[in-house]
Amino acid sequence: MSDTVIKDDEVDIVIAALRSDLTSFMEDWRIIFSRFHLIIVKDPDLSEDLKIPDGFNHDVYTKSDIDQCVGSASTSVLFSGYSCRYFGYLMSRKKYIVSIDDDCVPAKDNKGHLVDVVAQHIWNLRAPATPFFFNTLYDPYCAGADFVRGYPFSLRNGVTCALSCGLWLNLADLDAPTQALKPEMRNSRYVDAVLTVPARTMMPLSGINVAFEREVIGPALFPGLRLGGEGKLRWETIEDLFSGMCAKVVCDHLGLGVKSGLPYVWRKESGDAVESLKKEWEGVKLMEEVVPFFQTVRLLRSAVTAEDCVLEIAKMVKEQLGPSDRVFTRAADAMVEWIKLWKAVASASTSAA
Amino acid sequence: MSDTVIKDDEVDIVIAALRSDLTSFMEDWRIIFSRFHLIIVKDPDLSEDLKIPDGFNHDVYTKSDIDQCVGSASTSVLFSGYSCRYFGYLMSRKKYIVSIDDDCVPAKDNKGHLVDVVAQHIWNLRAPATPFFFNTLYDPYCAGADFVRGYPFSLRNGVTCALSCGLWLNLADLDAPTQALKPEMRNSRYVDAVLTVPARTMMPLSGINVAFEREVIGPALFPGLRLGGEGKLRWETIEDLFSGMCAKVVCDHLGLGVKSGLPYVWRKESGDAVESLKKEWEGVKLMEEVVPFFQTVRLLRSAVTAEDCVLEIAKMVKEQLGPSDRVFTRAADAMVEWIKLWKAVASASTSAA
Repeated sequence: MSDTVIKDDEVDIVIAALRSDLTSFMEDWRIIFSRFHLIIVKDPDLSEDLKIPDGFNHDVYTKSDIDQCVGSASTSVLFSGYSCRYFGYLMSRKKYIVSIDDDCVPAKDNKGHLVDVVAQHIWNLRAPATPFFFNTLYDPYCAGADFVRGYPFSLRNGVTCALSCGLWLNLADLDAPTQALKPEMRNSRYVDAVLTVPARTMMPLSGINVAFEREVIGPALFPGLRLGGEGKLRWETIEDLFSGMCAKVVCDHLGLGVKSGLPYVWRKESGDAVESLKKEWEGVKLMEEVVPFFQTVRLLRSAVTAEDCVLEIAKMVKEQLGPSDRVFTRAADAMVEWIKLWKAVASASTSAA
Repeated sequence: MSDTVIKDDEVDIVIAALRSDLTSFMEDWRIIFSRFHLIIVKDPDLSEDLKIPDGFNHDVYTKSDIDQCVGSASTSVLFSGYSCRYFGYLMSRKKYIVSIDDDCVPAKDNKGHLVDVVAQHIWNLRAPATPFFFNTLYDPYCAGADFVRGYPFSLRNGVTCALSCGLWLNLADLDAPTQALKPEMRNSRYVDAVLTVPARTMMPLSGINVAFEREVIGPALFPGLRLGGEGKLRWETIEDLFSGMCAKVVCDHLGLGVKSGLPYVWRKESGDAVESLKKEWEGVKLMEEVVPFFQTVRLLRSAVTAEDCVLEIAKMVKEQLGPSDRVFTRAADAMVEWIKLWKAVASASTSAA
């Protein structure tokens, strides 16, 4: 992994600013982020001006930029709260996007070394993924590892990895009920592994610490399922879980891989889980329908791009989930709107070039 | 895991003795093995008497015991070399079986503590498995962990774990070509995790370090696919890979779980991989047929026990794989023979009781 050469112009770091003062966040990340271009998207609900320290190459997008692009009626539907990050995904023109929540700081590995979250994510994305057979020694491409006895040679080239899901030390990404039941629980187990999530296996993608190849899978990472009482705490959102499962289905269909594991970030304390419980139950209940839905989605061969796939899934969401809850109908509409935006921005940037 | 209370009479440790002098092997394991009953099966091809140090509660089975049970014509077909361990599986009457190769010694974890391989395997088997949705923080039941946000509450009870596959430090379980290409490669990465291998995901089960619940899945762990030029080195065998995939299919069908990860053992140096290359290619080629076969096996609802499942799979092996290579026809016959033996021994022990 230490050999990973990353060109500065291949990567955008996308930050959703839910807090106005980014000083300590950005100072904590300076050593890792400063060589890359940053896209900072200010939560349109946030009124105070952002405080951003000097020395970063960054673009800031605010409510007026979003309004101008999508129309003010759509801004809060699509891009408020944690979902403002997706506007950054839309604006990026880079090959890779890395996105980290603004309540996270760099973690240390189990030898005490600072984790370079960008280098590890890009390594994960560049090395092939192996979704069709499980390698018991984890990532076979990392230094000192290989395929174990019995791994078919015909599968050892792997496939393109489109999505890399990192993890969290200290405050794990739990739901509000679990966090409320175990307020003292902290994750201190540093698991030194990356693995490909097998094909057809669904998993809860977390937007806290994630990276992906934008052109390939970007269209499948969208603000779709927004809860009625959605707040400004991670455990009050499920938009990342929903689009994450959509992205997994799309990757499976297109023969792309998804990895989970390293790199870790250190999540700082936040919010009162007990207060969130009332809101969270809506999300918890919806997951009972969302998971079986995505486990059975099969796409038509005619869907050959992530855009095609998302539109097809949006139709299924409306038809199959829509009747049980209006939140799904809204999600399906948002998916269609998102693909429209994605295509419009792409064609605008092509004609400008 | 430290809270795991294991009754001595719940566990048999099964050792396949491919070397006559077990003194250093057993001394290395004394602190962990000595409270349990050991079943030592001597490779019927081995002529010298076994050397076993004092202080162990053990039964030894030799060629004459095997001949008496299965008839001398079947002994070498089923139980020679690494496959002699399966005779121990047949003889055990305990709930759990733990089996470790005789070229392994206890490993240390990344804090330098001795790994209690039995305690970890039994913990893995007793805690539920979660094959239907991937938990990004690995085993949700282990101390300090839980289910991550988005994990459906309806799946949090998990299912019975039937099979626990441990890993290897130092000499990993590689095939001969990989070992020959990278003679200096040693596995030094201690990954502090256990995970459930998702449903419908195939994996290469290694017989080197394995544990299982005997009554539930024992019939699916059999000596089936024996190579023509099979030798006395792990990388010259694929019998464990073949029956491991069979066991995985059976677990998926019966709603049972399979875990992979901790505990590690330390594998010592052995044999000349370059010498094995000629033999190994047969196994490598066969895996290209075996893996797609098991990926598509679907069993009838009428198969409700591991015995039923293995017989049904044996039929498919004969019909679908048999025409391409006689080794598969022999494997199918061995599977039928094994189930016959398993039932006979079970009914004999019932009538004796």
